[in-house]
Amino acid sequence: MTDRASDTSPISLTDAEIFAAHDGGKLEIALTSPLDTRRDLSIAYTPGVARVSRMIHSAPETAEQYTWASRLVAVVSDGTAVLGLGNIGAAASLPVMEGKAALFRRFGGLNSIPLVIETTDVDEIVETLVRLRSSFGAVNLEDVSAPRCFELEAKLIEALDMPVMHDDQHGTAVVVLAALTNAATLVGRELESLRVVIAGAGAAGIAVAEILLQVGVSDVVLLDSRGIVTTARDDLTGVKSAYAARTNPRGLAGGIAEALDGADVFIGVSSGSVPESALATMSSDAIVFALSNPDPEVHPEIAARHARIVATGRSDFPNQINNVLAFPGIFRGTLDARGTRITTGMKIAAARTIAGIVGDDLAPDHIVPSPLDERVAPAVAAAVVAAVTDRRPQP
Amino acid sequence: MTDRASDTSPISLTDAEIFAAHDGGKLEIALTSPLDTRRDLSIAYTPGVARVSRMIHSAPETAEQYTWASRLVAVVSDGTAVLGLGNIGAAASLPVMEGKAALFRRFGGLNSIPLVIETTDVDEIVETLVRLRSSFGAVNLEDVSAPRCFELEAKLIEALDMPVMHDDQHGTAVVVLAALTNAATLVGRELESLRVVIAGAGAAGIAVAEILLQVGVSDVVLLDSRGIVTTARDDLTGVKSAYAARTNPRGLAGGIAEALDGADVFIGVSSGSVPESALATMSSDAIVFALSNPDPEVHPEIAARHARIVATGRSDFPNQINNVLAFPGIFRGTLDARGTRITTGMKIAAARTIAGIVGDDLAPDHIVPSPLDERVAPAVAAAVVAAVTDRRPQP
Repeated sequence: MTDRASDTSPISLTDAEIFAAHDGGKLEIALTSPLDTRRDLSIAYTPGVARVSRMIHSAPETAEQYTWASRLVAVVSDGTAVLGLGNIGAAASLPVMEGKAALFRRFGGLNSIPLVIETTDVDEIVETLVRLRSSFGAVNLEDVSAPRCFELEAKLIEALDMPVMHDDQHGTAVVVLAALTNAATLVGRELESLRVVIAGAGAAGIAVAEILLQVGVSDVVLLDSRGIVTTARDDLTGVKSAYAARTNPRGLAGGIAEALDGADVFIGVSSGSVPESALATMSSDAIVFALSNPDPEVHPEIAARHARIVATGRSDFPNQINNVLAFPGIFRGTLDARGTRITTGMKIAAARTIAGIVGDDLAPDHIVPSPLDERVAPAVAAAVVAAVTDRRPQP
Repeated sequence: MTDRASDTSPISLTDAEIFAAHDGGKLEIALTSPLDTRRDLSIAYTPGVARVSRMIHSAPETAEQYTWASRLVAVVSDGTAVLGLGNIGAAASLPVMEGKAALFRRFGGLNSIPLVIETTDVDEIVETLVRLRSSFGAVNLEDVSAPRCFELEAKLIEALDMPVMHDDQHGTAVVVLAALTNAATLVGRELESLRVVIAGAGAAGIAVAEILLQVGVSDVVLLDSRGIVTTARDDLTGVKSAYAARTNPRGLAGGIAEALDGADVFIGVSSGSVPESALATMSSDAIVFALSNPDPEVHPEIAARHARIVATGRSDFPNQINNVLAFPGIFRGTLDARGTRITTGMKIAAARTIAGIVGDDLAPDHIVPSPLDERVAPAVAAAVVAAVTDRRPQP
């Protein structure tokens, strides 16, 4: 699809078709070569395979070339923050992780397996993945609750010599940055000059704040369920404390009404709602990203009364902010380049590429490409390849 | 292939073709349904998948139907006893485990993923798999060193409510029993009456002894590297002690010469060798299975001077004892029947089925089907389904 405006007609799904499509699961294993003859068997299994194992034993870096692991993304979850469903546990999260693995395959051309883990202890999850580390080449963390997700991602990055990314944080942040870059262009503003309010200080909110700070947005105000995150509060967890010190430069106090007064951008990642009266106090040419799913913080038609540009997380409204624009290309590029870390520079490069693909089709109802746009993942991958800094040595 | 005699022409493999066939690995992920439209995305991922996750959360047994896990075999190894290579570690064992997963797919029609674990501590391996248990539906243990493999398998069977089988033990035992059943028929003997000598008291030797005892063979003599396993020895580990009490009914002492004197059957699973002089003392109509790979305990041409029936583990001699005749059908049948345990009865049923498939083609150089015989796995699966006793409740 390269149409200017994405199709946003509503999609009505029946339980019958959803469950039929999930019958037996969404993934299967296939062979890269036939196993039909004695010769095939002798190569793929004993005795031939022994030569490959012996090679890897004597030269461990050759595992990268002669197994599927180096280009295999493990989609890992403990099921503590699944979609809009909350803490439903590992087993119930598996269909989501299968879906994610399917998206990696379909859009990133990467192999991917779901691994759901029945412990919510961060150190036990790290320990489990460290023990399995020769089995895969990258970890996409998914649907892990905040603030545990921050500690878990940091510890995994430290413990595993491979790309690790919590997509609920960084996939969202990358696509939001792409969308906001294009929205700023449309309203004739420099990105850095925008006053941005982020409602929700969980995985997505923190990561969006971080990437905006990294690209030079200086006026970011973050809110959690108790109001504006500020250094004056004494009820903040470690991560929120850190962002209290780096955001809210005008020292605002209060709630969403105080935050939105005169703001240019509202980004909702809160599973809450925002009153129309507060949106009405935003600046002219306001930008509203109401990203909670399935219920946006404000209905896009109401938001449009007060904002020039409106985006949601849903496919049945214009401007869908969908992580699938980011993660397949980010992991593909990192693995193509033999990168061991997914850095801020790589995420920003991904965001700029996603924004750039919209090109001449840029319009208030088309600030991001369609999730089905086949051009996106290869372009993101290429941009990420160019931005990789930490590489595995050549075998 | 349903020819009477299997093709046993030697296969000469070059490193170039082996490594080319392993380039990028032997497995890949495929999707069971297309992901090409907005509707496809909405079903396989958000928002549709949330309904499936919610269903599994409220009715956990439905995970069996709506994920791939219940028919997914994890091929698990710690790389401590890989083929003829020994303890080469998890990473170097991965090509073997990929090959095994490929065989599960090709012959059992099951999905399978390799998981290699970088710990050799039995309890840590158990703990790792328990944490991951919602991610797969069965465990094929592979290439785990003895005697740890016995403890590991027993603990996993206890800890996981799913089929678990160490193939180096039971796959080998099943195919040996099938071959011996047919060999006994050819020499006109009752299986139970045979005097059997097993050289090697590791994973395969112990499991072969066990299955032979279970089917009523009363005269089994087991040897380790120090000689006949007997209750008079004080250097035996727990598992060997147990078999010392259940084997060697005539109280033999000594080595292979003493054991083979007058024996009917030699089964070598030792990575050692057997002197021709000892084979010469076996009974008339002797049966020799020299199964070590790549070097049989005795060259089959030398064995044939003293035995009526000779088998090896190699594809370039007649009568290849190959586990692929057993494990795909055993796991397939167990999963088809929603079984939670792979019992001795199921293994014996599998062995009888493998033996029976040879049928009218039975001959001294054709006591087992070809590993490529497409009839085997479905027939084994059907026999196993009929023998399953412990089933998961219907969802």
